[in-house]
Amino acid sequence: MDTFDISSRLPSSLRHRNIAFLDGETLLVTSRRDLPFCHVTVPCHSVAEAAGAIRGMVTQGGGQLEVALWAMVLEARRYGKDLAKLEEAGKVLSQARKTNTTVERELARLFALYRDLPEKGFARSLEGLVRSRLEDYDRIYLELGRRGEALIEDGMGILTTCFPEHSFFLTLSLARENGKRFCVYTMETRPYMQGAHLTAPGLLEMGYDHALICDNMAPGLIRDGRINIYLTASDLATASGWVINKIGTYGCALACKAHGVPYYAFSVALDRRYDSLEGHETEFRDPDDVKRCQGAMTTLEGVNSLYPAFDIVPPGLVAGIITAEGVVEP
Amino acid sequence: MDTFDISSRLPSSLRHRNIAFLDGETLLVTSRRDLPFCHVTVPCHSVAEAAGAIRGMVTQGGGQLEVALWAMVLEARRYGKDLAKLEEAGKVLSQARKTNTTVERELARLFALYRDLPEKGFARSLEGLVRSRLEDYDRIYLELGRRGEALIEDGMGILTTCFPEHSFFLTLSLARENGKRFCVYTMETRPYMQGAHLTAPGLLEMGYDHALICDNMAPGLIRDGRINIYLTASDLATASGWVINKIGTYGCALACKAHGVPYYAFSVALDRRYDSLEGHETEFRDPDDVKRCQGAMTTLEGVNSLYPAFDIVPPGLVAGIITAEGVVEP
Repeated sequence: MDTFDISSRLPSSLRHRNIAFLDGETLLVTSRRDLPFCHVTVPCHSVAEAAGAIRGMVTQGGGQLEVALWAMVLEARRYGKDLAKLEEAGKVLSQARKTNTTVERELARLFALYRDLPEKGFARSLEGLVRSRLEDYDRIYLELGRRGEALIEDGMGILTTCFPEHSFFLTLSLARENGKRFCVYTMETRPYMQGAHLTAPGLLEMGYDHALICDNMAPGLIRDGRINIYLTASDLATASGWVINKIGTYGCALACKAHGVPYYAFSVALDRRYDSLEGHETEFRDPDDVKRCQGAMTTLEGVNSLYPAFDIVPPGLVAGIITAEGVVEP
Repeated sequence: MDTFDISSRLPSSLRHRNIAFLDGETLLVTSRRDLPFCHVTVPCHSVAEAAGAIRGMVTQGGGQLEVALWAMVLEARRYGKDLAKLEEAGKVLSQARKTNTTVERELARLFALYRDLPEKGFARSLEGLVRSRLEDYDRIYLELGRRGEALIEDGMGILTTCFPEHSFFLTLSLARENGKRFCVYTMETRPYMQGAHLTAPGLLEMGYDHALICDNMAPGLIRDGRINIYLTASDLATASGWVINKIGTYGCALACKAHGVPYYAFSVALDRRYDSLEGHETEFRDPDDVKRCQGAMTTLEGVNSLYPAFDIVPPGLVAGIITAEGVVEP
């Protein structure tokens, strides 16, 4: 492994211990829904509870994968090498939220590795596989950060949506190390406010220039010339340049295109099973969440609402998808 | 005056009495910031306090004009015909929020009417002018509603931003009367949530099909074909087709253009002093407002933020401006 330490370059919310960890037969998941105001860990005693934490967005993005991997170790600690049980667990975890397919693909990959392991010490061997995979991911994140950094120029205004996690924060860390100045415009990302709860506090903690904005402010700032690059994570991306990401991404990508600002999405693993994502079914979440902000009602009980959770961005609006192997241009 | 009663076609928040009214030497302004949860009236005892209520967005949009007009009557009740005082009052009220120039132009118009009125019974005469002007506005709103209605087709998805007030609600009322079905998608409009606090409860009260959405969801819904027309108020509009309206309007107008959905803005009074609004200076409000939702902090105290309050929409994205004289196509 690269001796480069990534954890010192990340805000505390992105350190492994602050995402999820196993304590005996309990998986402790940091509740991103309570950050930055308090650090709450949600204990999960089963795969069903871990899947519930993913579904309820106790964690999200890359956190989903860490929780799913540790939940498999939890299952092995409890039941040993019971392949049927493990396969079922994999299904439950993959289906918890369907749009991001990384969990599904990683658990399939893991299955291929552990199915032939001996029964003796199985849980410990599986834990080794998981630790090693998380180290792989640290290397992938670092590589994504390096490729992201190459796109940053001194003085840039950088727009982002939701919580773009490791790849984005490593991009910023490397850019600062290389003497580049920048200001990050962070969309608050209603209704869960990941931008206000996670990204902006992370930028503050790391000492980067930043401005938190409401989601509706981004296109105007793009028009005003304040934004020079738009960088997001992705929940699903294809080699052909389609991106599915948090709701709000499409409007920004469109405004970027109209004003000659490039939009790049990070992808830890392109999903090569899809060529196009036109018409792809994405998640609609509980419409009542739109009627609340941080638990408080924002409108009357009887009001109807709608909560599409993701945007589909076509390749024509994507300058490139940043992968560990390079920037894929559609 | 047209015998057509508009008040039964409006949600209660838009009835004159629920916007502002004079009680002796106190102007009582309904706090739109507290609706729909409680009905709070803010008492203003002077022009300075009325201007403060406008600046603090106790009321907004057309409410600004009603408060400004009644504040002039308040001044006349207190000081009689003191033209210097009244002119100064007009300046203070016009400058409270600069982007919307209707108040400034209406007060100039009023000045031309009252300057030659006799001193005897001056306050009462001025009150008569104000009442008559508010009746004019009811007629203008109704005319805007009729022209808006002509643009609605059966089965349409109608997108709106912020609180588009009388013209919009009259459009809907007339459309329903004509047997047209529609669904209104209402953006919540962060940070003050006028969509969640005012528009959605108004739609609920009037019994119209509706869905409240977060601001970041609109472009995706436009892309999905759910939206057939985008209708907003305007804070400033020109005969050449420029529109200044609540932040968030630009991104939607851009998405509408990309998907062949027409965007129309209502204007009670085009500002004919401007040909172009390119580079026009618009209001930035207290950045701390971006860090709160309904009074509660959404992020850490130390986070930086930015609050541009308006978007400028160029004529290329505007299908038409709906005025009392007709729909002006850029």
